[in-house]
Formats: sequence, structure tokens, C-alpha cells
Amino acid sequence: MQIKVNLKENAYQVYIDELENLEFDTKVFILSNPKISGFHLKKLLNKIKAKEIFIATIKDGEEYKNLNTIEEILNQMFNSKLDRKSILISFGGGVISDMGGFAASIYKRGIDFINIPTTLLACVDAAVGGKTGINNSFGKNLIGTFYQPKAVYCESEFLRTLGERELAAGMAEFIKMAVIFDKDLLDFIESMDEKAFLSAKCENEIFSKIIAKSIELKAKVVEQDEKENHLRMLLNYGHTFAHVIENLTKYSVYLHGEAVAIGMNMANHLALNLSLLSEKECDKIEQILKKFNLPTRYKIDNVEAFYEAFFMDKKNSNRKLNFILINSLGRGLIKGDIDPKDIIKTLKEFS
Amino acid sequence: MQIKVNLKENAYQVYIDELENLEFDTKVFILSNPKISGFHLKKLLNKIKAKEIFIATIKDGEEYKNLNTIEEILNQMFNSKLDRKSILISFGGGVISDMGGFAASIYKRGIDFINIPTTLLACVDAAVGGKTGINNSFGKNLIGTFYQPKAVYCESEFLRTLGERELAAGMAEFIKMAVIFDKDLLDFIESMDEKAFLSAKCENEIFSKIIAKSIELKAKVVEQDEKENHLRMLLNYGHTFAHVIENLTKYSVYLHGEAVAIGMNMANHLALNLSLLSEKECDKIEQILKKFNLPTRYKIDNVEAFYEAFFMDKKNSNRKLNFILINSLGRGLIKGDIDPKDIIKTLKEFS
Repeated sequence: MQIKVNLKENAYQVYIDELENLEFDTKVFILSNPKISGFHLKKLLNKIKAKEIFIATIKDGEEYKNLNTIEEILNQMFNSKLDRKSILISFGGGVISDMGGFAASIYKRGIDFINIPTTLLACVDAAVGGKTGINNSFGKNLIGTFYQPKAVYCESEFLRTLGERELAAGMAEFIKMAVIFDKDLLDFIESMDEKAFLSAKCENEIFSKIIAKSIELKAKVVEQDEKENHLRMLLNYGHTFAHVIENLTKYSVYLHGEAVAIGMNMANHLALNLSLLSEKECDKIEQILKKFNLPTRYKIDNVEAFYEAFFMDKKNSNRKLNFILINSLGRGLIKGDIDPKDIIKTLKEFS
Repeated sequence: MQIKVNLKENAYQVYIDELENLEFDTKVFILSNPKISGFHLKKLLNKIKAKEIFIATIKDGEEYKNLNTIEEILNQMFNSKLDRKSILISFGGGVISDMGGFAASIYKRGIDFINIPTTLLACVDAAVGGKTGINNSFGKNLIGTFYQPKAVYCESEFLRTLGERELAAGMAEFIKMAVIFDKDLLDFIESMDEKAFLSAKCENEIFSKIIAKSIELKAKVVEQDEKENHLRMLLNYGHTFAHVIENLTKYSVYLHGEAVAIGMNMANHLALNLSLLSEKECDKIEQILKKFNLPTRYKIDNVEAFYEAFFMDKKNSNRKLNFILINSLGRGLIKGDIDPKDIIKTLKEFS
């Protein structure tokens, strides 16, 4: 299956379960991590022909997604004497695709890169859309570029080795897409066999369907608003809360998708307090998240500090907070000018 | 005077001696160095109104143009809580504009920036064209982005405090433009009163003319080939040699323009050996460079090592060397497939 991301300047294809043989007349630099390479690199290498292939692995984990690691990657790229026609392949989860894309975008002022995601979360979200970036002490993804891949290859095969938590975390971003854009899709998710899915014993078709649907929805958004001036902001549903939680827990307690699941529920409680969402709808979303064993609660120790941390998010300029909320299932909206009292009230419900 | 740089996506104006009052409805972050701020910041601040103004200075010099300094700049930007609508102003020479542009391009995936160059070299070259970047141990400007400024303001006033060497270094890039594109301009340079110019005692009109002419020529090139696929490579005349010289001397012996002056003369000797250029033309260019007290010779200690260092340059992919040479005054060309013997022979002439 193929889905086109139809950007004016940088259109590209996302291939789902279509990775056969890739031939390159250039050098190829594969960026991965030790775990993923151990599981899948041999399979990938069997499918790639290139002038020369270099393989670099970096430490796994959001806590290493920083400028030091970027410097390490760049040094390895220079050691491999990559030129401007060389291609970087990000082979891993969201951390790898965010960092590989960023390194590619600044190496010799930009070389091409391809994403081959190996987590469900990266398939449904991180690998498509051209956001690259790293974290620093001020917050998440605060340094980066908009830089589109030349192609994305999602393979169900690579998802078979994922654990239950990782599959659920990917599901969280998929549920997010359904909640903000597509009520029918949410009904489909509700009807899914979660046990088969979480044990990775479902059909390949289930993976393909989830990935394809998510990318179709995301492609439409990115095509209309590549640089996130308006519509694309909807994709941050749950993320304003999630980024604070991830930062407070130093990226070591929750997988990104898990933090997003909690963030969605927090956003829904805010929407409930603003009478945008009914209690029934709020509950329904929480039940769907729970069905996939996703967390939906986080105990806020210091409400003031949590509130203050919102302002370090990229999107919250000039102390103006925008929240992505839901006003009915399948319909997200951007909400500014919320009375701080309502926000604090919501946070207190989690304290 | 105004010159439009007419890029498809990111057109902008270069204003020459037209900096009156700049008003911003946003935060403004001025990046400069201690010396420039001491000389000119007060004058600049008198002309800027903004919501909030932050001033950050970084150490002066090419040896600090690295990823550590970028991290420092970014941290100061985060401390100033700049949002996506904030504007960075690079106020300084080429080092400042290259680093300010790069920091702006990766801060929260890109904010706007404006160049206000304070060296002649930055006015005639670095401030226009959208190349941003830093050096690393592998070479010069190897990490960076293509990222265009929103506007450029060149002011003769800021050039009055420059020393003789700095003015001559700027002249080197101007002479470069004339040699590759415009024989009449070269004749004008030959007729200039170099004493008045080098002591910064010439008319403002001389500065304006030099800057305007150089930017007009550069704008035409960048408009046709923003990402340096072909035509823009001509602007690297002299630079293939210069980058090696700067790297070998650790950026501490020559100003960039001085290294370029030597590099042009080396390129001309290569062109002479290839019978592209006559001895008379080669001499004429060297005399014009010398007229402005520019160096034209560098003693190469190790010819083999010098030759090998060419291959770290961004442009020399897959061990294929391209040189920018002159085949008559005002006409540059890209020359590949040169017999290594001819290159080595030329390098030996300087050993």
C-alpha cells in the first residue's frame, strides 16, 4: 500500500509493507540503536544495495535525544565521509527518526533521509510530517527543523518484536487521531481485539490498517499546514500536558504514548470543565485508553509548578496558552483565552 | 538604496544606508560580540523599538564558531523565553551572521532573523544568500542550514571603525565577484584610491557602491541556484584553497578574506597550468589583490597533506574535485576532472 504526502515542495510516498529492494547509487548511512539492530538489521541489509553502507548506533532512549548525541552522529557521518548526495536512513523509533532527520537536515546544509520506523508510534506519527528535533533542559523537541524525508517505509514485520507497552503507546497516538478527526475510526478501535493486538498476534492487516489510516489523516493535515500555523496544532491534542509530565518525570517513567494518553484525559477533563465535552464522552475516551492498558492519570504534586511549565512549550507564546480540546467525538478544536482558574481547577482534580 | 533578493519562497530586501527606525510587535534578540556592541550597539538600539529587547554577546572569532557556542546562544534564547514570532538580529561580522542564522533556523524549528552586518566582508558576502553554519574539527561550515534572512541592513556608518586588514579582507570577496562575473567592475577596483579606502576615509558612496554591486551580483546567482547545485558554486572561487589554509592555520593567522585572496591566486596558477588563463591576467589579479595589501602567497609545508585536505570540503563528493577557475577576466567556470598531477604541480609552486 502507498500513501502520498502531497507537499508543494517536498512530496513523498509512505510505503506500507512494500519494502522489497532498495538500490542506491550513493553512500548510505543507517542510524539505529543496539536493540533494533540486533532484532532487524540483518533483514534490512538483505534488502539494501548501495555504493557503501555505514551503520551507526546510538543509545536508546529519550534521555539521550540531545545535542551531544547529534554531535556524535555528525562526527560519525563525517568519519564516513558522506557527501551531499549520500542518504541517511533512520531505522528505529521516534527518537531515532527525530534525531536522524535533524542530523540529515544540518549535515553539510542538508542531505536526503529516509525513515524506516520500527515502533508503532513512529509508524503512525513520528516518521511522517517532517518534524525533526531534540530536547534540552528547557523542554521537549525545542531544537529542530522542519525537514521532510524522501520516503517512509513502514513494515508490519518490524513491529512483531514490540512489547505490550510499546504497542499500546503507539495505539495512544492512533486513538488521538481518531478522537480529533474521525468518530467512525474510534468505533473501530473500540471494537478491536486488544488482547491479540497487544500480544502482537493480530493479523498483519490490522497493523497495515492502523498505520495507513493514521498516515492518511496526518498527511491531509500536513499538506494543508506543514509549518504548524493552525490546523496542524490539532495533532498536539494531549501533548501540552504530556510534555510537562515527561519533563517532570525526566522521560524515564512513561513512554511518549503513555504520557499522551494521560494528557488526552487531562485535556478532556478541562473540556468537561468548560462544558465543551460531556461526561459520557470523556468517560468513553478514557475507557478506550484503558482497554489498551494505557495510563490515564498522573498525580500532580505541585499544581502551580505544573501550570508554570506549560509556558516553556514551543506553542505557548507570550504567556498565551492554547489547548487542543475536543467538543465532540471526532472533532478537535484549538482553544485560547481559557480562564486560568479553569485550568488550575482541572489540574487540581489530578493532584 | 534597496536590492531585492527575489527567491521564490523567501524573497527579501537588502537595505543599504537606509536603517532608520525598526519597529517590532514581538520580542527581539540581538546577537553580537563585545567589540561590536561597544562600538555600535547604542546607535542600533536608538533605532529599534520592540516589545522586549534581549542582547547576547558571544566571543569574537572563527575559532568559537562551533556547536558549543550554538548551544550557548540557544540557551540564552530559551532563557529569554523567545517564542515562534520572536526575531533574532545578527549584529556583527560573518561569524555572527552565520551563527545567528543557524541558531534562528533550529530554535523551535525556526524563527525569523535579520542580518545587520558590521564588516565589509559580511556586507558584500556573508549576510546575503541564506547560508548559515558552523565549523567542526573536520572543516569549515560543515554543519548548517540554508535559511534566508527576512531582511538585511548594511550601513556604511558601521564600517567606519574597521581596521585596514578588515577592510582589505572585505575587498577580497568583492574582487572575487568582479573576477568571476564582471570585468568592468575589476577595472573600477583597479582605479580605486586604495589609501583612502583602507583608512576608511573614502566617501560613504564608495562603501555603498561596493556593497550594492556585490549584492546585485550575488542576488542574481542565489535567485537562480539557492541550494548551490551549479551556478552558485562559482562563488567558491578561491575558497577550496582558502578553507584548507584556514584549517591548517587553525583560523588564527588569516582573516577569511585574506585566505580567499591567497586561494584566488592559487586557483589562478592552476588555471595557468591548464592554459585557461594567461600569465598576464594571472598577474593582473595578483596585483589588484596586492594593491589592497592582501596576501597572495602561502608556504605549503606538506603538499600531499594539503591535497588530501581538499576532500573534506563539502563540495568535493566521492573524491571528485571541482575547482572554480577563471578562463578570462570576468568569467569563472567550474572545472572537474583535472589531472591530479596538474594540481600537485600547482601546489608545489607554493611549497
